Amino acid sequence: MSLIPIRPGSSPGSGAERSDAARNRELLLCAARQLVEECGADGVTMDKLAERAGVGKGTVFRRFGSRAGLMMTLLSDAEAEFQGRFMFGPPPLGPGAPPLERLIAFGAERIRYVLEYGELARAAEASLHNRFEAPPAVLWHRHIEHLLRSAGFDADPWLMAMSLSATLDPDRLLHAVRVQHVSQERLEESWRQLVTRVAGGTVAP
Amino acid sequence: MSLIPIRPGSSPGSGAERSDAARNRELLLCAARQLVEECGADGVTMDKLAERAGVGKGTVFRRFGSRAGLMMTLLSDAEAEFQGRFMFGPPPLGPGAPPLERLIAFGAERIRYVLEYGELARAAEASLHNRFEAPPAVLWHRHIEHLLRSAGFDADPWLMAMSLSATLDPDRLLHAVRVQHVSQERLEESWRQLVTRVAGGTVAP
Repeated sequence: MSLIPIRPGSSPGSGAERSDAARNRELLLCAARQLVEECGADGVTMDKLAERAGVGKGTVFRRFGSRAGLMMTLLSDAEAEFQGRFMFGPPPLGPGAPPLERLIAFGAERIRYVLEYGELARAAEASLHNRFEAPPAVLWHRHIEHLLRSAGFDADPWLMAMSLSATLDPDRLLHAVRVQHVSQERLEESWRQLVTRVAGGTVAP
Repeated sequence: MSLIPIRPGSSPGSGAERSDAARNRELLLCAARQLVEECGADGVTMDKLAERAGVGKGTVFRRFGSRAGLMMTLLSDAEAEFQGRFMFGPPPLGPGAPPLERLIAFGAERIRYVLEYGELARAAEASLHNRFEAPPAVLWHRHIEHLLRSAGFDADPWLMAMSLSATLDPDRLLHAVRVQHVSQERLEESWRQLVTRVAGGTVAP
C-alpha cells in the first residue's frame, strides 16, 4: 500500500519529519504534565519547560506559540483524558460500577482535576462566552443526569444534575481550598454525602 | 426635648428640608420598586423613573447620581429587606417553622429575588473582589448552615451549606430561566427536593 500524500509535493522525507515533530511535541507535553503534577499549572513557565525537556526556549515557543497556547493544549488533553475515563475507563469511574459509586467517583476525580489545573481551569471557564453550554460542561451535566436516572432518581434529574454540577465550580473549589483551607478529602467527603443523600442511598458512616 | 444639630450651623429650617428630601427619596424608591416589579430591574431607566414619580429627570439624577447608583440603592434595600425577613420575619421563612421548612422557603425566596433583580444581582456579584466573602453571601451561608444543624445534619454542615449556596448562584439561575426556559416553579421544586433529601427528611410526593 502506498501512502497518499497529505499535501501535494510532500515527500517521504517530510513525512518522517512530521512524525519526528509529533514525537517531540509529545515529549514536551510529557515534560509539561510532569511539571503540572509537581508544581501545579500556575507554576509552569516556558523556561522551566525548556529546561526540563532539554531543548531551547525557542523550540518551546515554536511548538505552542505562547504559554497560553501550551496551557490550552494541556487542558484540552487533560479534559479528553478525563472524559475517556468516565465514559469508557475502569470502574468505579467508568461503566461497570453501580451508578451511585460512579457518581461519587466522578465528583472526586473532578475535584482532583480542578485542584491540579488550578487557575487554568478557572481561567478557561471564565473565558467562555457561555460557560454552561461549553461542550465539556454539557457532557458532565449529561453524565451526572444519566447516573441520577440509573440510580432511580426521577424528580427532574436534568435540573438536579445542574445543581450538583454547580457545587463543583472551579472558582468555588479553588476558593475553598486556597482561601478557606478546606482539604481535598473534606471536599470529596462532602460530595459523597451530597450525592448519596440526593440519589437516595444509605450514607455509610 | 430639643434636637441636636447633626452638623454645626444646621437650623430647624434645614432639618425640615432634610426630612422633605428623605420623603422625596422614599417616594422615588417606591416608584423604582414598582417599576422593578413590573418590568424587572433591567427595564428600569432614569427616564421611566422620572415619569412614574412625576418629577424631572434632573431630580432623579441629583438623588442617585446615575442609574448604577439607583440600582445599588435598590439592591441594598432589597437585600436588607430579605435579610430582615429570613432572620426576624414570619414563618416559614423566619423563625418559628421547622428548620427544613425554613430551608425550603429560603431557597424559594432567593430564587424569586434573583429573578426579580436579574442582571443587577448578577452584576453586583461579579463586581465583588471576592464574591464568596461578601457580607450578604457570608450571612446566607451561615443561615443555611444553622438550619442544617438545627435539622440534625451533622456531616460537615459548613461545607454542605457552601454547596447548597452554589446551586443558587445568580448566574446559573438566570441562565436556567432565560436561556434554558426553566420555570421558577421547577427551580423551587428542585431546591425543595435537594434540601429535603440532604437534610434527611421525607420528600412529599
